[in-house]
Amino acid sequence: MSVEINSLLHAGYSHPLFREWQATRSITKSALMYPIFITDVDDAKEEIPSMPNQFRWGVSRLQEFLGPLVERGLRSVILFGVISDSSKKDSCGSMADSDECPVVKAVKVIRKLFPDLVVACDVCLCEYTSHGHCGVLYDDGSVNNAKSVERIAEVSGNYALAGAHIISPSDCMDGRIKAIKSKLMELDLSHRVAVISYSAKFASGFFGPFRDAAGSAPSFGDRRCYQLPMNARGLARRAILRDLREGADGIMVKPGTPYLDILAEAARLAEDYPISTYQVSGEYAIIHASAKAGIFDLKQHVMETMHGFMRAGASLVLTYFTPELLEWLDN
Amino acid sequence: MSVEINSLLHAGYSHPLFREWQATRSITKSALMYPIFITDVDDAKEEIPSMPNQFRWGVSRLQEFLGPLVERGLRSVILFGVISDSSKKDSCGSMADSDECPVVKAVKVIRKLFPDLVVACDVCLCEYTSHGHCGVLYDDGSVNNAKSVERIAEVSGNYALAGAHIISPSDCMDGRIKAIKSKLMELDLSHRVAVISYSAKFASGFFGPFRDAAGSAPSFGDRRCYQLPMNARGLARRAILRDLREGADGIMVKPGTPYLDILAEAARLAEDYPISTYQVSGEYAIIHASAKAGIFDLKQHVMETMHGFMRAGASLVLTYFTPELLEWLDN
Amino acid sequence: MSVEINSLLHAGYSHPLFREWQATRSITKSALMYPIFITDVDDAKEEIPSMPNQFRWGVSRLQEFLGPLVERGLRSVILFGVISDSSKKDSCGSMADSDECPVVKAVKVIRKLFPDLVVACDVCLCEYTSHGHCGVLYDDGSVNNAKSVERIAEVSGNYALAGAHIISPSDCMDGRIKAIKSKLMELDLSHRVAVISYSAKFASGFFGPFRDAAGSAPSFGDRRCYQLPMNARGLARRAILRDLREGADGIMVKPGTPYLDILAEAARLAEDYPISTYQVSGEYAIIHASAKAGIFDLKQHVMETMHGFMRAGASLVLTYFTPELLEWLDN
Amino acid sequence: MSVEINSLLHAGYSHPLFREWQATRSITKSALMYPIFITDVDDAKEEIPSMPNQFRWGVSRLQEFLGPLVERGLRSVILFGVISDSSKKDSCGSMADSDECPVVKAVKVIRKLFPDLVVACDVCLCEYTSHGHCGVLYDDGSVNNAKSVERIAEVSGNYALAGAHIISPSDCMDGRIKAIKSKLMELDLSHRVAVISYSAKFASGFFGPFRDAAGSAPSFGDRRCYQLPMNARGLARRAILRDLREGADGIMVKPGTPYLDILAEAARLAEDYPISTYQVSGEYAIIHASAKAGIFDLKQHVMETMHGFMRAGASLVLTYFTPELLEWLDN
Amino acid sequence: MSVEINSLLHAGYSHPLFREWQATRSITKSALMYPIFITDVDDAKEEIPSMPNQFRWGVSRLQEFLGPLVERGLRSVILFGVISDSSKKDSCGSMADSDECPVVKAVKVIRKLFPDLVVACDVCLCEYTSHGHCGVLYDDGSVNNAKSVERIAEVSGNYALAGAHIISPSDCMDGRIKAIKSKLMELDLSHRVAVISYSAKFASGFFGPFRDAAGSAPSFGDRRCYQLPMNARGLARRAILRDLREGADGIMVKPGTPYLDILAEAARLAEDYPISTYQVSGEYAIIHASAKAGIFDLKQHVMETMHGFMRAGASLVLTYFTPELLEWLDN
Amino acid sequence: MSVEINSLLHAGYSHPLFREWQATRSITKSALMYPIFITDVDDAKEEIPSMPNQFRWGVSRLQEFLGPLVERGLRSVILFGVISDSSKKDSCGSMADSDECPVVKAVKVIRKLFPDLVVACDVCLCEYTSHGHCGVLYDDGSVNNAKSVERIAEVSGNYALAGAHIISPSDCMDGRIKAIKSKLMELDLSHRVAVISYSAKFASGFFGPFRDAAGSAPSFGDRRCYQLPMNARGLARRAILRDLREGADGIMVKPGTPYLDILAEAARLAEDYPISTYQVSGEYAIIHASAKAGIFDLKQHVMETMHGFMRAGASLVLTYFTPELLEWLDN
Ligand SMILES: [Zn+2]
Ligand SMILES: [Zn+2]
Ligand SMILES: [Zn+2]
Ligand SMILES: [Zn+2]
Ligand SMILES: [Zn+2]
Ligand SMILES: [Zn+2]
Repeated sequence: MSVEINSLLHAGYSHPLFREWQATRSITKSALMYPIFITDVDDAKEEIPSMPNQFRWGVSRLQEFLGPLVERGLRSVILFGVISDSSKKDSCGSMADSDECPVVKAVKVIRKLFPDLVVACDVCLCEYTSHGHCGVLYDDGSVNNAKSVERIAEVSGNYALAGAHIISPSDCMDGRIKAIKSKLMELDLSHRVAVISYSAKFASGFFGPFRDAAGSAPSFGDRRCYQLPMNARGLARRAILRDLREGADGIMVKPGTPYLDILAEAARLAEDYPISTYQVSGEYAIIHASAKAGIFDLKQHVMETMHGFMRAGASLVLTYFTPELLEWLDN
Repeated sequence: MSVEINSLLHAGYSHPLFREWQATRSITKSALMYPIFITDVDDAKEEIPSMPNQFRWGVSRLQEFLGPLVERGLRSVILFGVISDSSKKDSCGSMADSDECPVVKAVKVIRKLFPDLVVACDVCLCEYTSHGHCGVLYDDGSVNNAKSVERIAEVSGNYALAGAHIISPSDCMDGRIKAIKSKLMELDLSHRVAVISYSAKFASGFFGPFRDAAGSAPSFGDRRCYQLPMNARGLARRAILRDLREGADGIMVKPGTPYLDILAEAARLAEDYPISTYQVSGEYAIIHASAKAGIFDLKQHVMETMHGFMRAGASLVLTYFTPELLEWLDN
Repeated sequence: MSVEINSLLHAGYSHPLFREWQATRSITKSALMYPIFITDVDDAKEEIPSMPNQFRWGVSRLQEFLGPLVERGLRSVILFGVISDSSKKDSCGSMADSDECPVVKAVKVIRKLFPDLVVACDVCLCEYTSHGHCGVLYDDGSVNNAKSVERIAEVSGNYALAGAHIISPSDCMDGRIKAIKSKLMELDLSHRVAVISYSAKFASGFFGPFRDAAGSAPSFGDRRCYQLPMNARGLARRAILRDLREGADGIMVKPGTPYLDILAEAARLAEDYPISTYQVSGEYAIIHASAKAGIFDLKQHVMETMHGFMRAGASLVLTYFTPELLEWLDN
Repeated sequence: MSVEINSLLHAGYSHPLFREWQATRSITKSALMYPIFITDVDDAKEEIPSMPNQFRWGVSRLQEFLGPLVERGLRSVILFGVISDSSKKDSCGSMADSDECPVVKAVKVIRKLFPDLVVACDVCLCEYTSHGHCGVLYDDGSVNNAKSVERIAEVSGNYALAGAHIISPSDCMDGRIKAIKSKLMELDLSHRVAVISYSAKFASGFFGPFRDAAGSAPSFGDRRCYQLPMNARGLARRAILRDLREGADGIMVKPGTPYLDILAEAARLAEDYPISTYQVSGEYAIIHASAKAGIFDLKQHVMETMHGFMRAGASLVLTYFTPELLEWLDN
Repeated sequence: MSVEINSLLHAGYSHPLFREWQATRSITKSALMYPIFITDVDDAKEEIPSMPNQFRWGVSRLQEFLGPLVERGLRSVILFGVISDSSKKDSCGSMADSDECPVVKAVKVIRKLFPDLVVACDVCLCEYTSHGHCGVLYDDGSVNNAKSVERIAEVSGNYALAGAHIISPSDCMDGRIKAIKSKLMELDLSHRVAVISYSAKFASGFFGPFRDAAGSAPSFGDRRCYQLPMNARGLARRAILRDLREGADGIMVKPGTPYLDILAEAARLAEDYPISTYQVSGEYAIIHASAKAGIFDLKQHVMETMHGFMRAGASLVLTYFTPELLEWLDN
Repeated sequence: MSVEINSLLHAGYSHPLFREWQATRSITKSALMYPIFITDVDDAKEEIPSMPNQFRWGVSRLQEFLGPLVERGLRSVILFGVISDSSKKDSCGSMADSDECPVVKAVKVIRKLFPDLVVACDVCLCEYTSHGHCGVLYDDGSVNNAKSVERIAEVSGNYALAGAHIISPSDCMDGRIKAIKSKLMELDLSHRVAVISYSAKFASGFFGPFRDAAGSAPSFGDRRCYQLPMNARGLARRAILRDLREGADGIMVKPGTPYLDILAEAARLAEDYPISTYQVSGEYAIIHASAKAGIFDLKQHVMETMHGFMRAGASLVLTYFTPELLEWLDN
């Protein structure tokens, strides 16, 4: 009973170099985007208890924070605002694009300090609204999609004016990509500001530590009416196709590893676009916990997740492990 | 700037029931297979330190162990043998299918005790060989594929004769599905013993705790020449297609969550077959560690992974959380 | 007349980093394989007039030649034999796998000197036959395919026994992949020697300088009856599919840039396999001539071709620019 | 070990005529379009140093230049304007469609002299703007897409009024195909003036000699924000699909040989349209340099590139070798 | 109510040259194969009443007949034998490959007279059997497929030995392609004799005049049990795929125009192969009759059919209009 | 050398009934539409010399003409108008939809006489314009598409008001389907008048006799700028897709047999629509000439073409053989 010749696979991966050749794409520094938290306390460097080694940074400490990373090869960051003084929050998130918004200030500073660093701005209202929801609400507490989209587009325009290279709306409202693109055209910025849409963002339990970090938990209700149900492959596909139709320059899937199947689907549906994924706070915290418990070596664990993202089709990964990866990729 | 009508997705998931409707398939008790460790110490119940709540069981305690689970709805198990007395191991894993093999004995006992419970046998040599590799070796320590396949088929035949409903080879040798199927035909058992192939089994770091549990770490070298490289989508596809061509009745992807993209690929390639995935020991241990560290509620975490498996296309999940899931699915 | 929103592409590539994200795969050191000429004069280092900076090397100078490159990150080489003493050539290319063959000797030396370097052997008869054809001939001067395949398999087996990791038949005979794989199985080497087939090798004018280098021009006739006609997309597709069916571990398209369309086709047809392409001697010489004539900067020219290979789907590139690329990729 | 019958390919190309039958399409005179440079010095015939045998022609010498070629079977030309007197250039390229524009004058003359010759006009601003960019600029030096599209459409309309059969915009602005088509409808010319779009035009190093010829190098910056990144298969696909959606009558890929994979992709995406490719100035100069250096016979080299274009799916080739090809096709 | 821009098609074919660009392939001399009748009367030139301008030629007049055509560019012929002396016919068509067979003699003569002319031999038994059927019969008059295939392969081998470049079996027996290929391998001719299969040959009324020409009408019954039913798209597809699987080098569809849909299907199914079609005797006679009746100009009619063949995907056309086409293509 | 089992096709068509089963669809009376010429001489029955057995009928003789056919099972007709008095023709074809138009009168009569007979009206201007072109012209003699479309829609509306069930525009203007549909909506008739578009109508030589019949030859120029070039598979596909996009209820390919490949393409592209084809006047005349010349029996010839239409995918055939077919289908 001899083996069929074309059943023989072993030879094709019998040597470490052969195994590298099997990769459809390799991990590079330019594929990493570092998510950072900017607080409204300008000289702050505050620990985030649930996320080891991550801090909330004030604008005046960005040189200290980012300088060494840029030197090591950091190519892009994505900014999230943190408002420690809750009295500045209101129902429509006015702070989100005021001149005092830490994100607006940080964009300007970073563009000046590091002219070659790409700056993306996450756009959402939840860090700035008194109710902690991602949009503007009706009186009954449900989301007013039309008003929300208008506001999201307005904020996006102001981030673009401040100097953002990329607008990344994470709010999950229906129709916001078209609204943002239209706003950018109106501002004559549509030719140099790209829009990467959080198209497939799921109502996941992996976001817990982030809400700590950004102070953005909703004060009532939850986000299941705008973030996608975790079982919903069909809605995810429709959201991706919708955002392409509306003019998105890139697509994001979030969280990462627990939704690798959707990432692969995105890479197929949006085969002509850069595909990104966000290894979220929960994934980050768990990898640390797992290393601490002696279950899995941290570096090996991170690398296995990175291989997974590349294998599934990502061209860009948002990860809190960016500093470590910049080092590891040098060796 | 009004929203395009076909950009509106929110209504479709605005109610909890609507969100359930989005699922392509739901989680049921019949979709769970419980992996259990059978030791050669007949009356043992040994803790496995790296895997909370999991034990190595002796054959004489299977009634005590499985009885309550069967009552709760357990429909299938998969057996792994553990040889505590290393003097019984040799270079070709003779113990694997001897009458003294705990798996052989357990199959017979379980079939008698629980006539309706489906019994699958994992087939591999690593738990039984002195060198701890999954096949028979050449003198230079590399795997002799032809000899290994022959031995794997022989062991499979003996498990089938002992009463196994399903043969599940996890050894990753080239051509073993055809060999097993041929052996079953020779024994006139091919019409009632199914073969579920570990087609896409990756050389993953998530297997650590399992090796503790089964005492199966290789004494030298590693398994990278027969388990798939973790970046290799292409080899995984080829292995799945090969196993279908050779007659497999079902396909497995292992580990689970970190390879969801491959699970989705398998569901596409093998669309006419039952698709299974193995939530492995490392995934299990990490979910426990994460709960213990307060990052993610255990039940919610398990459920999010289960939703992922179903969304990606699994019809069968091998998971150590089977006992908990049998309970949760009742509520 | 306003512009349609989804007609706007500029933003998506308005920043250098955005342009990098558009790449489906990036160029890495592990993707380079360096083709080298081994002469039967053991201490030789002979200039190849038509190929600037390339030499024919004797076996005793391989440490001097390859040492610095391995240090810089060279991961793989492919060997071509050169027989300067034409009295050693005969009608069936006996020298090809004799113990005196420079390739056989070089494989052994390199494996000893650089244990981590992957060694591929080009397999063909033309460097060793008195008539300079790639196979064994009938009396009428046409190729005897059956005899040729038998001989090619025999040579392949001997290279594998000498230590080659990869066998790469460039002879274009019908059915040789199956024959080589069968020979490797017979020798119990099929699990650790991979076969990369020159599946789509065209009767191109770009091979001129190579024939100088290897002393392998046919003494009569040409190779149009076994190398593919340059217009033949259909035959190329059939040859690729045939070689996959016969068990190849990888596929090659040759030449490179002038057949990029076929490379893209290969990447589609063989999507589960590593895809390689050979930037041949003529392409190499022309890039040098173009730089010398001031038409195109050499580094930019090479990089544009490399981007092309990656864009079209290559995972492995055989190029004489490997030494330069190892340097450039460090900056 | 006999060869499988359907592995036998040799017979299918064993005779020169069989090899011709393998071609999916053959090279004909009607598939050639000759790119010519028209200067504002009416009686000029100026050598272009970087492009052997190519000249800038004044309008009054077109009879002498084109007469013999038309007799030999020339079916179409594409015109590029050259403004030697830089004082005639301004920020919006007014000269591009003035009555004094050499292209406008040449269209009229050629239509009168050679009524059966098809005349295409390349449409771009870079030969006419003081800054040398392909569009109208914002004050910050970046491209104003809306204004540029408007101007491109205006110029196109004037070339159509002068008698052009084909408008070929090479400017790469977003949305210009729709704008041009709308302008032609407005002028009641949309039923007899076709638009062939430079849809996939890459920011390539192969354009060097052209800039010499046309005097069109940008005075600052480069064209990377509107010409496609050379790694970007996805953007190229999107640009082709966009132009089809906007009403293009044909599609162009430029440069030719180094982007054959994209040409093949275009032939698939736009399978119902004539597909054209431009063998650009750098390709032309390099083929000459290669012949001069004795690497590759000029005619054989040109023919191998032409076979490549046809194989990849071109129905129309813009090439400076048109005069030679008209001769070669007669033999 | 304005017209949608992408509904505008007119411009794309408003000029005669634009209309030529729409062709996917053009008609060339190398795409023509001339079917000729060779009689056993060596010095004959006999009119065929039903086929104007076509004759049965004796072997000694082939110089006179073919010389001028070869000079005009004739590249290939296909030979049909005619046995005027019915006493030479028997039940197994022994004459078909005897040394006295006019086809065997003609092959030798033509190969000597015109070394560059490709010679194909139609292989069938009906011109040589006493019963006029295409195969060997059982006693009940039905076809003995196994015997027929054996005999067809034998005849094919003898034509190949006589010097035929191409074997073209028109007999429609099941499995004859594999048998012919095997015979050619046995004779060491498989590398230089190609097989073009009449894969989709229908039981058509358009064959009437041919039977006159070749004297091959069956003496009883008809050919509906081996020629395809004219309604049978499915059988035609299966026959094409079967012949590819069995090793055919090319595929034929017969008749031509009335089965253009099947020709297009063949071009899709066999996209990697040369596709041929046979404009049969009935089509030829009708075009003449139509011209004579003043319904349609002969040349225009022929050209419209030729455009149809090219449009549907033919790379090779067997047509009795070859002499006229050789002339027309010169103008 | 035995025959492969899956190479055996003969059995599947060895019996006449089996051969019928091979048909994907059969010929029925309901699939026939009879094209008839209505002249402005009310009591006329004029022979059409080039079309045996076909007449131009006056309105008052329609009972005599159609009565027996309806009795035999005629289900639908398509009407063409003939204006014998050329003084009634003008530049915009005013007669086309005047109350005196023979088509308008005939629709009303037929609807009254044969309430169950479906009446289609061919819509074109060429039978009614003084210049004989299918649209309204610019002063330079080229077609004014916008004006033509407007006029075609107006005529369509009037035929619908007169009682036509189907509007069939044969004019080939760009965008007329959308215009006709809009006109029908305006008239509140869009729910009961279907539009079958002559989407793929080629500039064929097979239309000669029709122009005699309808008196519609153009007085200058030809129709090549609006009827499709006969080589243009791409344009035909685009025209079909365009008409579907614009709302057509059915698609027509014309002529029939010489464009069977396009008919098959239409059946694929418009798989959800009824597909029709027109066996045109030239095809009709030639079948008669062929029968008269003794080449092919008329009935067998017609049936072979009908089998072809069905095989290629037609659901509706416009043929002048309708009366004969109604008879033949009864036997
Ligand atoms: Zn939010
Ligand atoms: Zn194992
Ligand atoms: Zn060779
Ligand atoms: Zn330009
Ligand atoms: Zn026959
Ligand atoms: Zn008309």
